[in-house]
Amino acid sequence: MAAPVTHVAELTGAEALISTATAAGIEVCFANPGTTEMPIVSALDSVPGIRAVLGLQENVCTGAADGYARIAGKPALTLLHLGPGLANGLANLHNARRANSPVVNVVGDHASWHLPFDAPLTSDIAGLAGTVGSVLITRQAEDLPGDTFSAIEASTRTGVISTLIVSADHQQQVSPRQQPSAVRVARVRPQVPAERIHELARLITASADDIVVLLGATALSRKGQDAAGRIVARTGATLYSETFPARAERGGGLPAIDRLPYFPETAIQALEGRTVLLAGAPAPIAYFGYEDIPSRLAPDHLVHVLSAVDEDSEQALVDLATALGADAVLSAPVAPELPPATERLDGATVGRTVAALLPEDAIVSIEGGTCGYPFFSASAGAAAHTALTNTGGAIGQGLPVALGAAIAAPGQRVIALQSDGSGLYTPQALWTMARERCDVVVLIAANHVYNVLRTELGRHGNDDLGDQARSLTSLGDPALDWTALAKGFGVPASRAVTAGQLADQLTDALQSRGPRLIEMVLEA
Amino acid sequence: MAAPVTHVAELTGAEALISTATAAGIEVCFANPGTTEMPIVSALDSVPGIRAVLGLQENVCTGAADGYARIAGKPALTLLHLGPGLANGLANLHNARRANSPVVNVVGDHASWHLPFDAPLTSDIAGLAGTVGSVLITRQAEDLPGDTFSAIEASTRTGVISTLIVSADHQQQVSPRQQPSAVRVARVRPQVPAERIHELARLITASADDIVVLLGATALSRKGQDAAGRIVARTGATLYSETFPARAERGGGLPAIDRLPYFPETAIQALEGRTVLLAGAPAPIAYFGYEDIPSRLAPDHLVHVLSAVDEDSEQALVDLATALGADAVLSAPVAPELPPATERLDGATVGRTVAALLPEDAIVSIEGGTCGYPFFSASAGAAAHTALTNTGGAIGQGLPVALGAAIAAPGQRVIALQSDGSGLYTPQALWTMARERCDVVVLIAANHVYNVLRTELGRHGNDDLGDQARSLTSLGDPALDWTALAKGFGVPASRAVTAGQLADQLTDALQSRGPRLIEMVLEA
Repeated sequence: MAAPVTHVAELTGAEALISTATAAGIEVCFANPGTTEMPIVSALDSVPGIRAVLGLQENVCTGAADGYARIAGKPALTLLHLGPGLANGLANLHNARRANSPVVNVVGDHASWHLPFDAPLTSDIAGLAGTVGSVLITRQAEDLPGDTFSAIEASTRTGVISTLIVSADHQQQVSPRQQPSAVRVARVRPQVPAERIHELARLITASADDIVVLLGATALSRKGQDAAGRIVARTGATLYSETFPARAERGGGLPAIDRLPYFPETAIQALEGRTVLLAGAPAPIAYFGYEDIPSRLAPDHLVHVLSAVDEDSEQALVDLATALGADAVLSAPVAPELPPATERLDGATVGRTVAALLPEDAIVSIEGGTCGYPFFSASAGAAAHTALTNTGGAIGQGLPVALGAAIAAPGQRVIALQSDGSGLYTPQALWTMARERCDVVVLIAANHVYNVLRTELGRHGNDDLGDQARSLTSLGDPALDWTALAKGFGVPASRAVTAGQLADQLTDALQSRGPRLIEMVLEA
Repeated sequence: MAAPVTHVAELTGAEALISTATAAGIEVCFANPGTTEMPIVSALDSVPGIRAVLGLQENVCTGAADGYARIAGKPALTLLHLGPGLANGLANLHNARRANSPVVNVVGDHASWHLPFDAPLTSDIAGLAGTVGSVLITRQAEDLPGDTFSAIEASTRTGVISTLIVSADHQQQVSPRQQPSAVRVARVRPQVPAERIHELARLITASADDIVVLLGATALSRKGQDAAGRIVARTGATLYSETFPARAERGGGLPAIDRLPYFPETAIQALEGRTVLLAGAPAPIAYFGYEDIPSRLAPDHLVHVLSAVDEDSEQALVDLATALGADAVLSAPVAPELPPATERLDGATVGRTVAALLPEDAIVSIEGGTCGYPFFSASAGAAAHTALTNTGGAIGQGLPVALGAAIAAPGQRVIALQSDGSGLYTPQALWTMARERCDVVVLIAANHVYNVLRTELGRHGNDDLGDQARSLTSLGDPALDWTALAKGFGVPASRAVTAGQLADQLTDALQSRGPRLIEMVLEA
C-alpha cells in the first residue's frame, strides 16, 4: 500500500518551502531579507501560517530564533540575505549552537545560473554556514518540500544549526510536485538505561567522597530540579548548575542551585576531591585557558555521566531519586527582599531589587556579569521564573534572546538584565520589541566599562593600565545615553540611580504593555 | 655576507606582533578585543607606534579598516575576539575584499593547549576567515615576527583579506628571537605592456563601433580620469565608471563620468553594439540575476582589457592617450547649484544641495541609492572630492567607511551620505566618530522604507504587497528617530525637512569640529 501523499495546487518553490515549514509546525520567521529572498517574502503572504518578524540587523534575527527555541521548544525560521546576511547573524548562531537550540536558517542565493559570474554579493555561503552546523543547498524547485523538511529535521539534532541555501530561481519556479505529508518534527531525547541509573545509585551510596551533581540542559527543568533537591536531602550531595545554562527554571520553591563558578581556580576548588555526576551538563571545562591552571576542572576518574546533554536528564534525575529512595523535600530558599530605597545601585542592589519584584512566570534573559551573577545569587527564593543565559560567549545575545522569548510566550513578562557593553552589539533588537509590542523590560547595567576585560588584563599581569588599554576597555568618552538610544528605536525609557528609583520604575514597567528600558546608573 | 638583522630586546609574542606591524608601516588598529587578546592590548601600550581605535561592534572595525585603506593606500590592523568577533566583522570584510582594500585581521584564539577541550567560545576561526581571503595560524611565539610580516604581505594581494590567528599563549610567551628588518609592505601594480596599449590604440582608431571605456580601480584617480577625458575629446568615446567604485576622484574639473547603470537591462542598453574597453574594471556583470536577462552586460567578443583590476590603470590610460595623440581637454562640467530653499527634500534636492556645498577635498562615503544616485548625477561639476561606495553590497558599510576615512585623513572633511536602512546595521560607528573627534557629517536619508526591496518585489511580479511583505520592507511603526540615536551615541544632531534647512545645517556642520548628524526627512 502506498503511503498517503497530499497533492497540492501548483506552488512556487518559495511557497513550497513555507508550506512545508508550516506543516512541520513552524510558526515564526525572524527575517531580514534582500533581493534574493523576494519570492520567499511574497510566499509569507500567499501561504498563511508563519508570522514574519523583521530585525534591523541579522544578529537580532538569529538571537531571537535562539530565544524563541529555548522557550517554545521548537525552531523558528530565520530569513537571511546571502553570505553577508548570514555572516551578520553567525555570532548568535554560535550561541544558539552552544544552547543546543534548534534554528533553521533560510538563506537566499543568486539565481543558480548567475553564480558563476562572481557578482559583487557572491560569497561562500556554505562555508560560513558549515561553521555552525549542517548545510543543504537546493538543486531545483521540485526539491524544496523535501529539502525544507530535511533542513528542519537536521535542526532537531543536538548542537546543530541547520541552514538551507535556496537560489533565487528555485524560489521562483513553479512546481507541480506534491508536498510531503504534514509531520511535526520534534527533538527526541533518549531515556537513560536503568542499569546506568542503578550503577550510579550504588556509587553514590557506597562513596566516601562528597558528591556534586552538575545539572545542565533538561535537568534544569522544574521536575528535574525537584528530583535533584530530593537527592540532596537524601545524600547531602551538592548541586551546581552549569555556568551558562540555555534555560533554567528557578524560584517558586525550587532548591537554591548555584552556577558552577566562572573562574577555573574557584571552580576547581568547588569540585576538589568530589565525585562529579553529570546530569545533562558536559564535563566541566575552564571557559578560557590560563597559564598553570588545568582546562579540566575535575579529574576524569572522578567524573561520571548520569545523562548526556542530548539524553532525557529530567527523567534520569527522577529515576535516580527513586532508586535512592529520596522522597524528602528540601526546604525552600528564603524569599528575596528589596534593598533600602536610598541605596546607590550596584550589582548586588540590582540583583536583589529585580529578584524581589519578579512576577510569577517571568522570563529573565541575562547577559553580562555585573548584575547577572548577583541576580542569580539573590533570586533562588524568588517567584517561579525562567532564566536564559549567554551560552556561547558571543556578546550581543541578551536583547535578541529576550525578543525571541517574548514572541514565543506572549502571556509572560520578559526581563532583559543586560550589561551595557554587550547590549551595544545588538541595540536594534529594541526596535523590533517596539514594533511587535513585546512586554519586555530592558534593564541596562550602565557602568561604562568592559569590566570583564579590566579583570582579564589584571589576570594577564597588567594591573597598571596604559592609555590604550584603558581606552579599549572603556565605554566612557562619550558616555552612552541609553535612554536616548531607546527613544531612537521607539522604546520608552527612564533612568534609575537609587534602588528605590529602580524599584518604582520596574514596578511601573511591569504593569505596562509594550517594551520599556531602564538605564541603571551603577556606581563605578 | 649575511643579511643584516636587527636584534631587539626580549618581547612577548604580542609585542613582537605590534613591533613588526609598526616596522611595516602600519599605524592604526581598529579593535574590539576580548579575553584572548589581552596581551595584544597590553602590547599596544608597551610598544608605541600604533593608534588603537575602539569599535563597539566588529563590523565597525572592519568597515573602518576598509575606509582607512581606501584613503591611506595601506592596511590597518583589526583586532577581533575569536570566531564570533571575526564573524561580526565579516560582512564589511566582504565589502573590503570587493574593494580590493588591504586589511589585516588579528584574531586571538584560546591558548593552544586549551583548544581541544571545546570551551564555549571555541569555533572554526580559520573556516570563517577563509571565506574572505588568506589565513595564517601561529604555531609558536617565536614565529610571530615572521607570521605578522607574512600576513601583512598577503594583504597586499588584490582581493585578499588577510587574517592572522594568534593563540593567547603565543601572544604571552616571551621570545628572544630577532625581528625581521623593517620593510614597508606596499602593493605593487604591474605596468601594462606597451604592445597592449598600441594594439588597443589601433583598435580604437580602426573601429567603426562606438567605444565605451569602463573605468575602475586606479583608473578613477585624477590623473587616470584626466587621460580618459582626453581620449574622449579625441575619439568621441563614452566613459563610464564601474557602478560601485571603491574610490573615485570626482569634480574639480574632471570630466563628468556616469556610473554604469545598476539594473542590467539599462546597462545592456548603454553598452549595446559598442566596443568596451576595460580600464581597471572587471567585465561588466549584472548585480543580480533576473529571468531572461543575461548576466553578461556586454558580449565577450566586444570586451577588451586595457588594464586588469590589479594593473596600473592610471598609467595605462595616460599611455593610451599618448598613443592616440589625445591632448585636447574636455570642457569642465557645470558647477552644481543649490535648489530653492523651500523645496521639500527628496533624492534630487539632497544630491544637488550636498554637491553645491561640498568643500574642496571632501571625502564622501555613499551608501544607499535614494540619495546616492542623485548625488553622483549632481556632483560631476562640484569641488574636487573623493567618492567611496559600497563595493560588495553588504549593507552597514557607509558609516564605518566614513569613520576609517576620517582617521586616515584628519585634515579632510568627510560626509557620509547614508540611507536609513543600511545605516541601522552599524549605527555604533557614530560613537567612535564622537570618541575620536572625527570631522564627519552624517546625512541620513530617512524615508523609513527599504526602498530597493519594494522595487525588487515589483521586479519579481509582486506589485500589490501583502501585509507581511509591506511590513518586512518598512522601517516605520515605529519610525526610527535618528537624532535620538545620535544623541545616544554622543553625536550632536538636527533634522532637516526642506532644502534650505539642509543647506543651513550642512553649512554649519562643515564649519564645526567633530561629528554631526543631520536626519533628512524625505518625501515619501
